[in-house]
Amino acid sequence: MNQKLAQLKTILAEISDIKGAADLLSWDQQTYMPPGGAEARGNQLGTLQRLAHERQTSSELGNLLTELKPFAATLDPDSDDARLVKVVARDYEKATRVPSEWVVEFAQVTTLAQQAWMEARAKSDFPMFSPHLEKIVELGHRYISFFPKADHPYDILLDNFEPGMKTADVKAIFDALRPKQVELIKAIAQKPQVDDSFLHQAFDEKKQWDFGVDIITKFGYDWNCGRQDKAAHPFTTGFSNHDVRITTRVAPNFLNSMIFSTMHECGHALYGLGSPDALERITLDGGASLAVHESQSRMWENLVGRSLPFWEHFYPRLQETFPSQLGNVPLEKFYQGINKVQPSLIRVEADEATYNLHIMLRLEIEIALMESKLAIKDLPEVWNTKMQEYLGVVPPDDARGVLQDIHWFSGYMGYFSTYALGNLVSAQLWEVINRAIPDLPEQIRQGKFDALLGWLREKIHRHGRKFEPQELVQKVTGSKIDAAPYLRYLNQKFGQIYGL
Amino acid sequence: MNQKLAQLKTILAEISDIKGAADLLSWDQQTYMPPGGAEARGNQLGTLQRLAHERQTSSELGNLLTELKPFAATLDPDSDDARLVKVVARDYEKATRVPSEWVVEFAQVTTLAQQAWMEARAKSDFPMFSPHLEKIVELGHRYISFFPKADHPYDILLDNFEPGMKTADVKAIFDALRPKQVELIKAIAQKPQVDDSFLHQAFDEKKQWDFGVDIITKFGYDWNCGRQDKAAHPFTTGFSNHDVRITTRVAPNFLNSMIFSTMHECGHALYGLGSPDALERITLDGGASLAVHESQSRMWENLVGRSLPFWEHFYPRLQETFPSQLGNVPLEKFYQGINKVQPSLIRVEADEATYNLHIMLRLEIEIALMESKLAIKDLPEVWNTKMQEYLGVVPPDDARGVLQDIHWFSGYMGYFSTYALGNLVSAQLWEVINRAIPDLPEQIRQGKFDALLGWLREKIHRHGRKFEPQELVQKVTGSKIDAAPYLRYLNQKFGQIYGL
Repeated sequence: MNQKLAQLKTILAEISDIKGAADLLSWDQQTYMPPGGAEARGNQLGTLQRLAHERQTSSELGNLLTELKPFAATLDPDSDDARLVKVVARDYEKATRVPSEWVVEFAQVTTLAQQAWMEARAKSDFPMFSPHLEKIVELGHRYISFFPKADHPYDILLDNFEPGMKTADVKAIFDALRPKQVELIKAIAQKPQVDDSFLHQAFDEKKQWDFGVDIITKFGYDWNCGRQDKAAHPFTTGFSNHDVRITTRVAPNFLNSMIFSTMHECGHALYGLGSPDALERITLDGGASLAVHESQSRMWENLVGRSLPFWEHFYPRLQETFPSQLGNVPLEKFYQGINKVQPSLIRVEADEATYNLHIMLRLEIEIALMESKLAIKDLPEVWNTKMQEYLGVVPPDDARGVLQDIHWFSGYMGYFSTYALGNLVSAQLWEVINRAIPDLPEQIRQGKFDALLGWLREKIHRHGRKFEPQELVQKVTGSKIDAAPYLRYLNQKFGQIYGL
Repeated sequence: MNQKLAQLKTILAEISDIKGAADLLSWDQQTYMPPGGAEARGNQLGTLQRLAHERQTSSELGNLLTELKPFAATLDPDSDDARLVKVVARDYEKATRVPSEWVVEFAQVTTLAQQAWMEARAKSDFPMFSPHLEKIVELGHRYISFFPKADHPYDILLDNFEPGMKTADVKAIFDALRPKQVELIKAIAQKPQVDDSFLHQAFDEKKQWDFGVDIITKFGYDWNCGRQDKAAHPFTTGFSNHDVRITTRVAPNFLNSMIFSTMHECGHALYGLGSPDALERITLDGGASLAVHESQSRMWENLVGRSLPFWEHFYPRLQETFPSQLGNVPLEKFYQGINKVQPSLIRVEADEATYNLHIMLRLEIEIALMESKLAIKDLPEVWNTKMQEYLGVVPPDDARGVLQDIHWFSGYMGYFSTYALGNLVSAQLWEVINRAIPDLPEQIRQGKFDALLGWLREKIHRHGRKFEPQELVQKVTGSKIDAAPYLRYLNQKFGQIYGL
């Protein structure tokens, strides 16, 4: 069986290498590629993705898995090899259900749709885009039809991002969350608003960049195994556990953009860098799911990076860096400013208290689309109605409404809830971490993050993709994904800031 | 047969895509990859190269070629399709001789070796690097063993860079060249030396960079289809005829380094960008050979970029850019300074009169290594002895000696002579071009390069890889590669500068 296992790992190494190469091609496309390179890049990516897919669905792989399953059943179920067979069998089972014609059509439709989206968003013209979305939704329905009937059709899509999670689970979590978040926002709205005007000034871009670099160096980001570049939409990507790169954007007139996106992407990168060598080149590297990944990025961005102890350490040097802009802004005021709660139109700019409501709105729309209970033409109206209901603001145009995110238009249906789930998991983990490291706030106040990073590596990062998200969260926190810690966190934090 | 041809092109498109992806991986390795990424990059490159090699050696490809050869024989022998079958058959014949295990090992060894080279060069520590070079030379011997016995074992390696050329041809050309170049250098040494001290001053790096960008923009480099980055050893690489990128280096205290390496790499890039769409994705893009490629880079760098008419146009704005350094240096003096002949240690910084001697030294060492007449440990000593013999200078350390070039450490054995051959071809072409465009010096004086670029595109670039180098040179100049025009050029130019 060891020989079979070695054969399996050889195939997986090849798949990993091809995917790593494809990921570099994508990284380059979003950072340095000149515009003329687009067509050839499309061909190269298409070829690599086809080569990977052929291997992921080969009968050789299928036969090896069939032979290895009884053997894996005799092993410690949490061992690397047992999990390897389990996870790869799950991937194989899913990949082989989807006909290659669908894969090709999906690639074609979404390539055109993304282009159309850019134009539609620029012109704020939803009808221009809706035929593309019709096709994407139809492809979603067909995708679902390849799988055995689930409790809910949306389960099939959700499973691609959160393996093992059900639509009903997410709905139950969000149902517990929604009224409490709405209540909190209403209470905040009754109180005097905090001032954040000092964040909206001219800040030298190079100085911003360097400050961000200082922060994540202290977090423990290893520049020997990573780098930071600029990108229109910040992202993190890795080509091994020794080369995980981040991107950021720097707004010349708004400090938050760089600071928090840098910390956010660094959180993702630390997860990738913490994946152990033993899980490399067997497709078990990376993270348990998008929600668990997001729990890491949001923890470093928010629970660390938007906390008072963090700024007790970093604010004096931020003031030194920008004396004319911040020299007269006291720490407490700065802390309030970066945590200002204000219902707004754009998800990626939303504060911690309102963010999840943007997600819930999107999830409800996705589910309705997959239940065929919502017509594409009615999307803008439904969007705007829900925005009014949840956040009390209505987009003046579709660019700032239903057209704002690229996800659907890239074919990502089932993705959005992972952002909110990640927020919840970050707070669950934070409670456990603070019990394990009782002086963590004091450490952060001193600019020390090694105990925190060590804990995350030991409890989360080192497992790579071995466990399903609910399994991992249960293992580490003692319960499944739960809204209560996040609500406690929000109420405590914003209760203090707004004097509730 | 059209169907067979289409099948052939489908296979070649896949090979092109895989190779284009591998080339991007290499570009990244030399520009942006963090050091930690090296091992995984070696795996990824190894896998891609193996996948390309499998396709390049597949019986499907072999059978198609067998079926297509009689058909190709009925076509115009210079037509794209006839040449396609011929060139691809030559590639196939060579590739099928090399086992995949060798290809994978080569990729892994050279990836690690390049990383080690950077460190070894930084520390000027040859012994640190020599185990890597042992492996590379051993891989060279094994490579040669896969082929039928040639007139000289080195022929096998040379053919990879100069298809159709023999070691004896190169030796004969170099034998004609060496005494004349040595004679010229001696004559120059009798004359008063020109002053170039003004080139060795502090020059703002950003201003240098921008000046280089201005020059190559005027040459016709299309930034929509390219970009420039920094690299320790400047190089050019393309992923299609719409994405050809250059790299350069900027020395803070020496102006020549950036100016001439930028023009040099641009010359390569213009060749790649001039490859027609019809030759894309069928492995006929790129250039006829490295010598022909080098004829392009050296032409823009030297025949254009080190000429008096060129600086009649650009020097006033260079003086404006660096008034304190060059304001009091007259054009004639500047022209002499950038053309100063002085035997020196570093090949890439060598002047036109001594450059080829650096190459001859390297060629002799390569040949001795392939004849097993030289041990790796003796390399630094042999290097230094030959430097003394040919150029009268001895490197004070290995960083400025045997470790200066990346080529061997990337596995390129058989490569160096192409640089000197390229010099010769550049002068051969230059004589023809100046007959075709009699007012070319006046055009250059006005900063106009479109007629020159147009000629090169028409006569050289548009043929991609269709012709062997000697064939192409013969076609364009009426003779094979020949030392005489280059010697005429050197004698005329340096006779004037040094008053011989």
